[in-house]
Amino acid sequence: MARPKQVRIIDVGPRDGLQNESARIPTDVKIRYVDMLTDAGFGWIEVTSFVHPKAVPQMADADEVYRSIRKKRGVRYTTLVPNPRGLERAIAADVRDIALFVAATESFSRANINRSIAGSLDDAQAVIEAARPAGVRVRAYISVAFGCPYEGVVSAEQVRAVADRLFELGAEEVGLGDTIGVATPGDVNRVMEPVLAKLAPAEKWGLHFHDTRGTALANVMASLELGISSYDSSAGGLGGCPFAGPSAAGNLATEDLIYLLDGLEIEHGVSLDKVLGASRFIVDAVGHPLTSKVYQAGGRLTTVPAPR
Amino acid sequence: MARPKQVRIIDVGPRDGLQNESARIPTDVKIRYVDMLTDAGFGWIEVTSFVHPKAVPQMADADEVYRSIRKKRGVRYTTLVPNPRGLERAIAADVRDIALFVAATESFSRANINRSIAGSLDDAQAVIEAARPAGVRVRAYISVAFGCPYEGVVSAEQVRAVADRLFELGAEEVGLGDTIGVATPGDVNRVMEPVLAKLAPAEKWGLHFHDTRGTALANVMASLELGISSYDSSAGGLGGCPFAGPSAAGNLATEDLIYLLDGLEIEHGVSLDKVLGASRFIVDAVGHPLTSKVYQAGGRLTTVPAPR
Repeated sequence: MARPKQVRIIDVGPRDGLQNESARIPTDVKIRYVDMLTDAGFGWIEVTSFVHPKAVPQMADADEVYRSIRKKRGVRYTTLVPNPRGLERAIAADVRDIALFVAATESFSRANINRSIAGSLDDAQAVIEAARPAGVRVRAYISVAFGCPYEGVVSAEQVRAVADRLFELGAEEVGLGDTIGVATPGDVNRVMEPVLAKLAPAEKWGLHFHDTRGTALANVMASLELGISSYDSSAGGLGGCPFAGPSAAGNLATEDLIYLLDGLEIEHGVSLDKVLGASRFIVDAVGHPLTSKVYQAGGRLTTVPAPR
Repeated sequence: MARPKQVRIIDVGPRDGLQNESARIPTDVKIRYVDMLTDAGFGWIEVTSFVHPKAVPQMADADEVYRSIRKKRGVRYTTLVPNPRGLERAIAADVRDIALFVAATESFSRANINRSIAGSLDDAQAVIEAARPAGVRVRAYISVAFGCPYEGVVSAEQVRAVADRLFELGAEEVGLGDTIGVATPGDVNRVMEPVLAKLAPAEKWGLHFHDTRGTALANVMASLELGISSYDSSAGGLGGCPFAGPSAAGNLATEDLIYLLDGLEIEHGVSLDKVLGASRFIVDAVGHPLTSKVYQAGGRLTTVPAPR
């Protein structure tokens, strides 16, 4: 499979990033942040979550954030929708793109949302069946697709079974999440090769890596070789707190992904400088250093005069 | 080129790592640290540097460190030797393996050691000519082999010219250093493909990546695909201070490299647990958190009971 010449970067910082930050971020800061990401050139941005406000207080302002962001023509502003009630709120806010999640393992599904995989797929069915007539596009994610904190290594067959059902229900695409950041390129090949061969071609899949063990960009390399061209990341590595230990989310940082793609001469349409600007904007609000190495190192190499 | 089934990891923490640490490390701590790395199973360890004590005070105890470490049969304990005077000290300490450095760019060479590349190669010649009759093996490094802070992108031709001369002088192997941590897999292919085709096969090369911009493991992936099987790293990522900015050395962390290799089922002979133990031992002496993500995340995935 040829490496793609162009990839899509979905910045998930405003939702997946901020949801994992302990500091409460003011609504106007979130809105300005999404607008800066729009200006940076992303074609997809995960904006907020219509989850119950008591479950995730950080996302209680989902309606206001979604309504207030400046929407650029052609950009897909995705919101997480966990259930039919969330979809009602999303539709009321005139959302056009949603994301929903189903876990790859029973233990994680029960621990995370107190539902079996089958029950979670029933929820997904209800959401998709209500979304499609309303003209809302659905992207589905499978969490813990490579490893689970309760069950260990996740098999390609577990992923295939859930993905098969999600495509059947009408998901436009399926994103696989390395939720706990354990995947290596060996896992990418182990899980992706069978589902690419049996279920759907490369353009129907996206990947969501966490850099918890430093392997996120190596995993992107392996995925590019498989022809996969859709990657989630968060500006600055938002959602991962350095030295917070294994529970840190550790999203792959958008800046680091861009640096890799630029070095491979793969197009993505996003301005690294503007992403760095968005990170500099949000860093005070989150209240800790950002994990992106490119952010820390100051961006691309610029030369300085040699000492005399 | 087939990916190698087995690679050599050279732990450079005691020299390249500690040299870039601001805290002065007691000699007995260094000795114990090297002994722990020996126990971890490395076949090569970069132990210390016979540089002038005024230039690098951290390495002023090179003789004592080298003499006092426990030497396991078959393990190569390398020391950096910058010039013939350093070689005399190394030979007096009964060193069997040395490393020397030549820069790929004139500006870096002059800024770093106040010598032209040609002058630096003359020094290398003098060292190698004195080393070989004494039975001392020589590994040569080319620094700033991918990018230079003064000259920007470094061409494959610049690297080839210096490497050609180093092989001609009798260097056993040549290691290419991404000294300022700017390389991407695109740079690895750009520099390595020509020198592999024109100069020497994969087994004559080693790579030394810094993770300054998060690309080190992605670069290892690209290098493995080229058949290269020798990689430098430092336990814990020693030598890189988080959030110290672009001047941070940012060595690729040995733990992160091992995690990647294990995931690819590539043999390396090193115990991850024992490397983590060495990192836990040294962390207090360096006085700041270590950058290794696997160290921070607590090593390999272990499962926990699912909540009820």
